[in-house]
Parts: sequence; C-alpha cells; structure tokens
Amino acid sequence: MQSTIKVLVWGMGAMGGGICRMVMDKPGLELVAAVAATPAKAGRDVGDVLEFGYKTGVMVTNDAREAFDRSRPDVAILATKSFISETLDETITAIQAGAHVVSIAEEMADPWAQHPGLADRIHQAARGKGVTVLGTGVNPGFVLDVLIICLSGACVSVDKITARRVNDLSPFGPTVMKTQGVGTRPEEFQAGVKNGSIVGHVGFPESINLIARALGWTLDRVEQQKEPIISSVRRQTKYVTVEPGWVAGCRHTASGYAGGHELIRLEHPQQVLPELEGVATGDYISIEGTPRIDMAIKPEIPGGLGTIATAVNMVPLVVAAQPGLLTMVDLPVPRAMPGKR
Amino acid sequence: MQSTIKVLVWGMGAMGGGICRMVMDKPGLELVAAVAATPAKAGRDVGDVLEFGYKTGVMVTNDAREAFDRSRPDVAILATKSFISETLDETITAIQAGAHVVSIAEEMADPWAQHPGLADRIHQAARGKGVTVLGTGVNPGFVLDVLIICLSGACVSVDKITARRVNDLSPFGPTVMKTQGVGTRPEEFQAGVKNGSIVGHVGFPESINLIARALGWTLDRVEQQKEPIISSVRRQTKYVTVEPGWVAGCRHTASGYAGGHELIRLEHPQQVLPELEGVATGDYISIEGTPRIDMAIKPEIPGGLGTIATAVNMVPLVVAAQPGLLTMVDLPVPRAMPGKR
Repeated sequence: MQSTIKVLVWGMGAMGGGICRMVMDKPGLELVAAVAATPAKAGRDVGDVLEFGYKTGVMVTNDAREAFDRSRPDVAILATKSFISETLDETITAIQAGAHVVSIAEEMADPWAQHPGLADRIHQAARGKGVTVLGTGVNPGFVLDVLIICLSGACVSVDKITARRVNDLSPFGPTVMKTQGVGTRPEEFQAGVKNGSIVGHVGFPESINLIARALGWTLDRVEQQKEPIISSVRRQTKYVTVEPGWVAGCRHTASGYAGGHELIRLEHPQQVLPELEGVATGDYISIEGTPRIDMAIKPEIPGGLGTIATAVNMVPLVVAAQPGLLTMVDLPVPRAMPGKR
Repeated sequence: MQSTIKVLVWGMGAMGGGICRMVMDKPGLELVAAVAATPAKAGRDVGDVLEFGYKTGVMVTNDAREAFDRSRPDVAILATKSFISETLDETITAIQAGAHVVSIAEEMADPWAQHPGLADRIHQAARGKGVTVLGTGVNPGFVLDVLIICLSGACVSVDKITARRVNDLSPFGPTVMKTQGVGTRPEEFQAGVKNGSIVGHVGFPESINLIARALGWTLDRVEQQKEPIISSVRRQTKYVTVEPGWVAGCRHTASGYAGGHELIRLEHPQQVLPELEGVATGDYISIEGTPRIDMAIKPEIPGGLGTIATAVNMVPLVVAAQPGLLTMVDLPVPRAMPGKR
C-alpha cells in the first residue's frame, strides 16, 4: 500500500459513476481509466459524464482492451451487470490484462454457489496471471453474509441464523419498479415471478453459501420464495403509484436447510414507502446460539453507497491478497479507506 | 484445517475453563494439555477441575514446559492475565515450544499501542519460529474495534466514530467490584482511581490504535477518563450493596484525537444493575460518515462467552496465517467454528 494503486472502472452507471468519484477522493488510489458500454459517453471526460463541474483528465472509452493497454491498471473494478455469465468476458479480459479484479456482480460474491465450473475457470485464469479476483457489494457481500459471519465469531456455538434487510425502493426508477413488481396487481405479480420478469433480490444463494462455508456447515438445499407485499394504503413515489390492494414490492426470502432443519433464513422485503404501514427500514441479524446475538442497524445501510464503498474499500486488501478467485471471507476484515485530510 | 488442531490451554480460571470446554466441543480441535498456576488444580483431570461430571483424560499441570514438551500443541491459548508485561514469559515460552499463540491478555489485542518494544520482540521471536501470535477477546478484540472497523467497510468516508458498550456487572464477584469501584463512596472512588486500585476497563488504547491503524488514521493523542457512576437508587447484588449517592460503577471513556478533533470516542460504563435507572445494556456503534451507520446489539454480547468464543474461533485462522505477531485486523473476518452435529 506504499504507492498509489491505479484503478480502471468498467461501467459508468449509478454504481460505476459513484465508484469513480470515490476512487478519485482516496489519496491511495488513482483513477486511470473509465470504460462505458454506452457510445454516447465515449470520448468525454469522466468529470463531464458524471457532472462533477470540473475535468478529471480521464476520458471515458468504449474500448476496454485499449483502456487496459494504455492505462495498465493494478485493479479493475467491474460495475456492469449482476450475473456471472454476463460479466465473464469482462472478468477474463481484466485478468488477461494482468489486473486484479473487484466485481460488484451479485453472483460473484460467491461464484461457487451457482456456477462452480465458471468459478474454477476464473480461479485458474487468475492464478495463472498472479492476480486476485473478488466479488463484493453491500448485499450480497456485506450485510446478509459478511456481517453475520463476523458476529458469529463471538459465539461459542450457533444453532440458527435469521437476518432481514428492510429497505425503501422510493428513490429508484422504472427498471427497479419492474424487477420488484412494484405497482402490479397481485395476479400480475405472480405471473411476473413465473415468467422471470420479477426477479426480486439477486444474491441469496451466494450469501447462504458464504455463511455455510465460513461456518463449516454442509447444507442439503437452499430454497427461495418471492411473495407480493400487498399494500393496504396508497403509496406514491415519483415513479409509481400503488393503490390499496396492489403490490408495493417483493418479499423475497431464502432458507438453507440441513437434515430437515432450517439453519439459515434470510429475508429481503423490497418495497416503496414501508413506513406508511409502520415498517421501519433496517438491517436486522439474529443469531440463535451461545450467546444469542440480536443486532439492528436502523435505518439500513443504503444499498448504493454501501456497494460503492465495499467495492473501493476492498481494493488495497485485494492487491495484498494471494492470487486466485477469493471471497469476502478469505480476506481481512473490511475497513474504510482513508480520505483526503 | 484438514486435521485436528492440538490445543494447550494455559490458565484455568473462568476464561481458561470455558475455553477448555469449548475446545472439547469442537470436532476440529483437540485439548491436549491444560496448565494452571494454582497448585491445588495440578494432577487432577480437567473434567474434575471444571466439574464436568466426567473425566477428559487430560490432567492439569503447573509445569508449562513439561506440558508443551509432552503434548506438542499446534496452538497455545493463553488465558492468565491482562498486561503484556505479565504474560510475556508465557508468550515466549509458547513460541519457543513452536506453538502458535492466541492470547486473551487485553494489551495483546494491539501490542504496539503501548508496548512497541515488547511487540517487536514477540514479533521477531514468532517469525523466528515460524508461528503466529494473536491477541483477541470480546473487548478489546471485537466489539469496540473489529466490529467498528468491519462496519466502516460499508462507508465511502468516515468522519467520526462513537461507540458505547453498556454492561451489567451483577454476576461478577468481589475482585471485579473492587477494580470497578462498585460500592464505594464518590471520594473513595476518586482516591481509588488515583492510586490505581480502580482500573476500569483495560484495552482502550489497544482498541483505538487498532481502529486508527485499520482506517489509516494518524492520531496525535489518546485520552482516557474514569468517572464514578453515582446511583440514585439502591442497587443490590449477591456481592455488593450500593446505596443512593454511592458509586454503582465506573464510566470509563477514551478518545482519539487528530489535529484537535476527536475522531474516535469509546465509552464503557461498567456498573451493577443499570436497568434500575432505565439504562439498557447493549453494544452501540455510530459511524458519522457517508453513509451514517447506527448499530445496536441489545443486550450486549456477554463478556465472558464472547471472549471464550473469539479466542477459540480464531484458532483455525491463526494456524493458517503468516508467521509473526498479528492483530485481528490482519486476519480474515472472524467466524464461529462448527460444533458437533
């Protein structure tokens, strides 16, 4: 960590933009390149694209290979899509360029959970080039896995884990409303779950597998459920109106079982304006064990900022780690990077 | 972690006894030796000394060197005293025997905080023998440092940290009552603080230094204050009676400053029966930053169980770590070891 770490950011949406901003605020990091998929962003200064009001000297490009060749980053932060299959080419491109990788693709939080074959392929590629690959983010990657695991460290024994992340989707636009089924009628919601257009939360299998692996538990199966949160009041945001009887969001839950017992239960009800029905947003973790631990973070750690923060804060730990595809539980305790003083 | 890790436990008080019990409950660990300072415990089976109601086959000894020679432990867990100067010989003895060390001596949570010379000596000895040395415990070692650091990982920036651990000393006996000044008159309390008989919490400089180092902060100074918690009601336990106007415990606080700003403030008011005056026990962490994070664990993680748990749970991570004197923030995220199923 003696010298500045050169960072390429791939993805210039809300997350990639926030990551660029945070990288530039950290004396230990230097933004050396920014890659966007959108042609309209190419050839423009990062400061203009992100409306900083000043030039950064870093131009956005659509050509990732050129960006790697020119800027020779130590680390590439990938902030493009959620699924491993969608981000595999980007991940391999970064590895082949000799860069460590931090990915916020949800499935990368534990690639072995659902894609052991692709995970092995990434692991071998990373080891071959002597670089480290990590998936992280606020969830999966922090609240419903790393924080639970960390708290369990103060337990003599653990019988069962229950955790709940209650958030408010009000700030989000039409895409999120659609993928969470906000504003649908109950029958539309069920149809949307069935045809895959209502996806709920991406990352439950990854969180449950991370917990089980860290705690040395062998699970028989992981089950997920998506249920409509039916509103009993009118809920209105800038982007959606939910009438009484309509769907305010998706109550997505996941359970990990061993020998018929539910050992891990994670709940992530995502909706607009839960407080209109007296539901307080927050992150809640209960570990039944010796001792019992009940934790609450109110309000919840915000998803956008939390994901930006975990991605950037892990950069120095990734640079110092052994080569290969790692997870958050293989690395030292997360921590905030120092800013400018 | 493929094979069973052989563990020697040094110290057979409340902590050492609980550690023995937990080690024996973990399939990944084997208790191979137990060392006590008390002559009356020597030559007796651990099961008899700890009143398990059954024999363990492990005899308690007063002779540490003999115990190391005979049992060849992979790891020695030291649970004897609080200060580095008091536990240095034990630590070096374990290192010389080629054992990794987990110590619950409070000052070992960050030996560089107050004893950089001794820390370097331990570090060199450990590296020389290829073993790892770690200090841990519930506090310092977890609640007021590791957990804060972990939460900060979800922050884009951190301005100030405030944390408070509010506990109830009711279960504790005369020694703790005395070192916390419970049951004294206010003027006795002040005299006790002055002459060093009322010590309050041991571990604040260690926690503050751990946080500052992990977050890359340079502090100018660390200040501590010990104030009497004057009771306005009668508080009675098995071991002490506190009349109104007397001292129910010690409000011990510590602050870390940089450039005249208080960046870290830790509070640990320790008293008997705080709920009699409407004070709820708990662990509370507030990080002022982007985002702000407010965490509460109610009731607090119990000190005894938490210390036993952190010490034993870190054993596999210590065995897998690089040689030398490390701290909790150098190692992967803590986690509960699997038990018998």
